[in-house]
Amino acid sequence: MAVNLSAPTRLAPIAGAEWAVGEAAIKKPGRNDMAVLKLADTATVAGVFTQNAFAAAPVRVAQRHSASGRVRALLINSGNANAGTGRRGEADALACCESVAAALSIEADEVLPFSTGVIGQHLPVERMQACIATLGARLTSDNWLDAAQAIMTTDTVPKGATRSVDIGDDTCVTLTGISKGSGMIRPDMATMLAFIATDAAIDADALDKALRAAMQGSFNAISVDGDTSTNDACIACATGTGATLAPTSPGWSAFVDALTDLARELAQAIVRDGEGATRFITLDVTGARDVDEARAVAFTVAHSPLVKTACFAGDPNWGRILAAVGRAPVQAFSIDRVAIALDDVAIVSDGEPRDDYAEVDAAAVMGQSEYTINIDLGRGDTSARIWTSDLSYEYVRINAEYRS
Amino acid sequence: MAVNLSAPTRLAPIAGAEWAVGEAAIKKPGRNDMAVLKLADTATVAGVFTQNAFAAAPVRVAQRHSASGRVRALLINSGNANAGTGRRGEADALACCESVAAALSIEADEVLPFSTGVIGQHLPVERMQACIATLGARLTSDNWLDAAQAIMTTDTVPKGATRSVDIGDDTCVTLTGISKGSGMIRPDMATMLAFIATDAAIDADALDKALRAAMQGSFNAISVDGDTSTNDACIACATGTGATLAPTSPGWSAFVDALTDLARELAQAIVRDGEGATRFITLDVTGARDVDEARAVAFTVAHSPLVKTACFAGDPNWGRILAAVGRAPVQAFSIDRVAIALDDVAIVSDGEPRDDYAEVDAAAVMGQSEYTINIDLGRGDTSARIWTSDLSYEYVRINAEYRS
Repeated sequence: MAVNLSAPTRLAPIAGAEWAVGEAAIKKPGRNDMAVLKLADTATVAGVFTQNAFAAAPVRVAQRHSASGRVRALLINSGNANAGTGRRGEADALACCESVAAALSIEADEVLPFSTGVIGQHLPVERMQACIATLGARLTSDNWLDAAQAIMTTDTVPKGATRSVDIGDDTCVTLTGISKGSGMIRPDMATMLAFIATDAAIDADALDKALRAAMQGSFNAISVDGDTSTNDACIACATGTGATLAPTSPGWSAFVDALTDLARELAQAIVRDGEGATRFITLDVTGARDVDEARAVAFTVAHSPLVKTACFAGDPNWGRILAAVGRAPVQAFSIDRVAIALDDVAIVSDGEPRDDYAEVDAAAVMGQSEYTINIDLGRGDTSARIWTSDLSYEYVRINAEYRS
Repeated sequence: MAVNLSAPTRLAPIAGAEWAVGEAAIKKPGRNDMAVLKLADTATVAGVFTQNAFAAAPVRVAQRHSASGRVRALLINSGNANAGTGRRGEADALACCESVAAALSIEADEVLPFSTGVIGQHLPVERMQACIATLGARLTSDNWLDAAQAIMTTDTVPKGATRSVDIGDDTCVTLTGISKGSGMIRPDMATMLAFIATDAAIDADALDKALRAAMQGSFNAISVDGDTSTNDACIACATGTGATLAPTSPGWSAFVDALTDLARELAQAIVRDGEGATRFITLDVTGARDVDEARAVAFTVAHSPLVKTACFAGDPNWGRILAAVGRAPVQAFSIDRVAIALDDVAIVSDGEPRDDYAEVDAAAVMGQSEYTINIDLGRGDTSARIWTSDLSYEYVRINAEYRS
């Protein structure tokens, strides 16, 4: 069902970043559901975590461990989110970190744990520890795609991307990332898991700054169903095996641009593989007074089940877009200057339907698998762009049957 | 598909309130799609209107006309919302008011127009005017059910209710109301149409106060899909043919209670007939610091597509409830004192799953057509109760095929 998305054909290795994957049969047997990423001891790590008040046990542990400043490995499992599992959930996450530490000869608080899958069930810790014990011998830098597959849940396509960026003086750094997620997707933050590594040497504060700069136009600009997960995180690792970069370096902005571009591709892949998605829709809101109101309008439209079902049907029922714009939390909002267009088909100008609008034109736009809904609020010069998917029968089926 | 809802068997006439219905074939022929309510010249009227910035043309006209202080008739059409229709939309609504004025020998600005149906199409004014011209001769006080049927759109069951309230001294007043709506339903305000009349004599200010008091626990406490309509309104009429009531009357609180109870039944009927609904779910949030945060949590859970699909499936995937609570916009929210129960099945206490929880018990609750999700935030003593429905294949079908 994924919209114009196929598995990545090439994910470049990153020196100093090695993956191993294995099967712990967490939800069911027959697939790899565990992955460990071992980082060079020169590595720095930055992370952005879910804003959900019910942050899952592994998120709380990962935040504590990353605050200690030294990270040598990431552990990810799919099939079980270890969320809503109370104190035992934290103990389980720590026990897995200890197994990784033993397998890789590092410290347990140098391991960041991540879990994704069903909420409210305890981890099968013993099976996971037995699997972890086998992973140290399987580490290799050329298996990002295996890792992308191991972290999938309802994803139908593994997600990954690579960028190479020239930072000057004939020096390149490489970035490779993978992501997972197709439901419970909305911003603030991150409603999915994403792991990005680069061989550049970047201090932790600068890496954190670069990652946060990359979020707004990527993982914090997508929505499938408006539900923020308890588990989500985006982690950036700089292994320090390549060229040194700092915010004062000539190549810094090129690096941040590449990181943003990579993050955007990974984030868009999640929307393209959104549960039941048949359309990939860009929402461009312009003419806002500030970015908060631009994003509020964009997400209100993106979350409207009526807009999403009209998109599924390819039905240019633009009144639903207008109604969603009208209920967005915008202060002192007048419709008199609002314009709406689908791609280049102008429908509404100055708050009224245009005389030259012909429904057949809008239907042609909405018949495509990808298009843009343009909304101009006509009250300022700030804009925001986000991406979303439609709401189909298949979304309901996937989420009604998820645990059966 | 409606959940435990059947057509009303008896809707008591209200002296001084007469309905006439007719067919203008607005969307398609074969049903009554126009209704006029003529009020005694002693009547007072109060109204609550949509908060959507894109209020439809008839809403804007009705607000202007009701501000003038004297209302003698309501005109309602289904099949076309006259929304997103610009200046011509207002002219069309006014033209219909003029036809009503001519038919009933009243003034056009004494007529409140209401429209419901598809957005963004112009009204077939000539057909509507031809129909209106025939309505004056058909007025009768004993056809509330006909009116309830004429205002239906995707509703599958006509909605109405009656209350008789003893206001002391062996004196009764009667209230009868009808409502419509099954999609684009969420509060603030009103996401549907409802028309309530009583024979009591109540001045306009007091009637307005009573209506607003009745809203919070009725029409402003329901959600089907989180979409606020451009057209919605709840109108209360006191025809003045019966006993006189004022806020200082001994019977006033009994009257307001009866109005609230009637409004709640009409509002709940809309949820029971929610598009594709297979469950009627009460959300009780307790232990909040104030009513705003209690309602914020309740509506965040009610709007979660993941919770709604789990409800459809009857799957006690309570982690989705927990995740939705966790992303509600509540300041300084800690999970440590949160409790969740389905009816009397306690699942989470102090933010953790209970040792005595057995999924089979929760599955039994969620297998019912009606149940309550109880969420105790454990941080205050304020509560809120709202009602919602589930998200089914049928919701997607109805809204994907609405215009075809």
